[in-house]
Amino acid sequence: MRIVVLAGGIGGARFLRGLKLAAPDADITVIGNTGDDIHLFGLKVCPDLDTVMYTLGGGINEEQGWGRAEETFHVKEELAAYGVGPEWFGLGDRDFATHIVRTQMLNAGFPLSAVTEALCDRWQPGVRLIPMSDDRVETHVAVTLPDSDSDSDGGSGSGERKAIHFQEYWVRLRASVPAEAIVPVGAEQAKPAPGVLEAVAAADVILFPPSNPVVSIGTILAVPGIREAIADAGVPVVGLSPIVGDAPVRGMADKVLAAVGVEATAAAVAEHYGSGLLDGWLVDTVDADAVERVEAAGIRCRAVPLMMTDAEATARMAQEALALAEEVRGA
Amino acid sequence: MRIVVLAGGIGGARFLRGLKLAAPDADITVIGNTGDDIHLFGLKVCPDLDTVMYTLGGGINEEQGWGRAEETFHVKEELAAYGVGPEWFGLGDRDFATHIVRTQMLNAGFPLSAVTEALCDRWQPGVRLIPMSDDRVETHVAVTLPDSDSDSDGGSGSGERKAIHFQEYWVRLRASVPAEAIVPVGAEQAKPAPGVLEAVAAADVILFPPSNPVVSIGTILAVPGIREAIADAGVPVVGLSPIVGDAPVRGMADKVLAAVGVEATAAAVAEHYGSGLLDGWLVDTVDADAVERVEAAGIRCRAVPLMMTDAEATARMAQEALALAEEVRGA
Repeated sequence: MRIVVLAGGIGGARFLRGLKLAAPDADITVIGNTGDDIHLFGLKVCPDLDTVMYTLGGGINEEQGWGRAEETFHVKEELAAYGVGPEWFGLGDRDFATHIVRTQMLNAGFPLSAVTEALCDRWQPGVRLIPMSDDRVETHVAVTLPDSDSDSDGGSGSGERKAIHFQEYWVRLRASVPAEAIVPVGAEQAKPAPGVLEAVAAADVILFPPSNPVVSIGTILAVPGIREAIADAGVPVVGLSPIVGDAPVRGMADKVLAAVGVEATAAAVAEHYGSGLLDGWLVDTVDADAVERVEAAGIRCRAVPLMMTDAEATARMAQEALALAEEVRGA
Repeated sequence: MRIVVLAGGIGGARFLRGLKLAAPDADITVIGNTGDDIHLFGLKVCPDLDTVMYTLGGGINEEQGWGRAEETFHVKEELAAYGVGPEWFGLGDRDFATHIVRTQMLNAGFPLSAVTEALCDRWQPGVRLIPMSDDRVETHVAVTLPDSDSDSDGGSGSGERKAIHFQEYWVRLRASVPAEAIVPVGAEQAKPAPGVLEAVAAADVILFPPSNPVVSIGTILAVPGIREAIADAGVPVVGLSPIVGDAPVRGMADKVLAAVGVEATAAAVAEHYGSGLLDGWLVDTVDADAVERVEAAGIRCRAVPLMMTDAEATARMAQEALALAEEVRGA
């Protein structure tokens, strides 16, 4: 069975670990979000790709869900001692090596997809990990910063409206101000990376893990050609709700859902994807009353436990998603 | 008093520490060798500049004489896990930060001299440290590698003659094969960095510490204009022998002296610099019999203890050098 998974960072990576347990013989291709990528200290950092790679390759810091296990922070300490920031982005020493290798290969002319494949040669994640695009796409968030946090003269009291990098919004500001708009800068000109459309066309099932529907899966879908290929693949497309009981399972997905006018409920996220894209949707058992609304939108829906408390619980979620896909296929 | 010092790595850095003790009120400008510089992992590494900066700034690993104190090697471990080398060059995590900042600034368009000044803002070495040139100069060593270490088909048994980077000769091969020639690639086209010629012209004394006369001080002197400026400065130029008792005090200076046809003795090194450049020369007390030969070559010479066993002994060496400079001036 060939499974294609669109993945963001932590949620996608943990789901994939469950999927590998649930379908050990499946041929899994992961299309990774690169809208979170950022250049720091002259190095190219791909947080979502690395989270998938480290999680599936056994190198992840399990507790925090990102970064490397047994990590130290001496490079970062020294950069700060030189007065070189930003300090708010937590790059560890072991993690730095990944960014150094990646940057060196990119500067030598290799595309990100080839670099990612080379990095995965070491980590052996057990899936084929492809960035959504070799072209630079950078998610920006429009915000109004309070006067104290801006360069405004304070006269108006209305704050300064500006677009900031997603990582600055998410990590530095911790989504503490409303996101007024989410813009995947460069997406319109981006092309799917080699292998992306081919994997979608060859897939038996396409899964959307409980990743962020706006800044993770939404960004992947914003690359021209990917949404269309999925909609036209003619195979079951099944998603898992990242919202459980009207709140994100983790992270701050509600903040960015608000920016695109979508309420933070399991049903609203399914409607946001829409029946033109999505065939099946899993909601948590606490959201069982959403099933009727989702099905009314033309999307087959089941309520099952959706908390990724451990690998086994996650594997059961993946099994439910694959079962729903078979149900869709048989219908 | 304005003192200009031409410096390589460990020997130069330790001598400078003694000089600062001996002449606490002096205005010291250090012209640093950059012929040892190397690009590793896409980063610009300047071993000699950093050794001076870390030693005078209190960040050096005292025992080994290079690299940072309290260092860890996680980045390097991870690079090796990715199969990315070379593994023979020991870059620690804290040290990596320096190279990351330097590379980022160079890529932003700053010349190495400005970058070095910025790095020194943190370290406060108490001297003005200027690279010999902002242009790339790279010392290569011509060697004949034994068949087992080359790509030769082994038919001739004569080995393969090739030019390798000085660091590969020094660090990887540990000077285990004869150096047949030393070539400061790019030196002929290089210009002295801003401030170098001005510092030499304004100097009251110019010192050559017991640094390597070929690949450290020799490389600095190979930048067109520097040797001439020193010879024409009209102030005492005094050096300290890096050879004590017919052997290098540390390092493998004899290997590279052989390549330029100079015997590894205190007198021969003085003659190699020559009376057109050098006014005074200090040899160790064990080499007292060299004094006559050096003076016969037109260079004033004294025999004093030249082992930099601790900062105080080194300060006495610096005092002797300054005293000899005054003697030259008064002559």
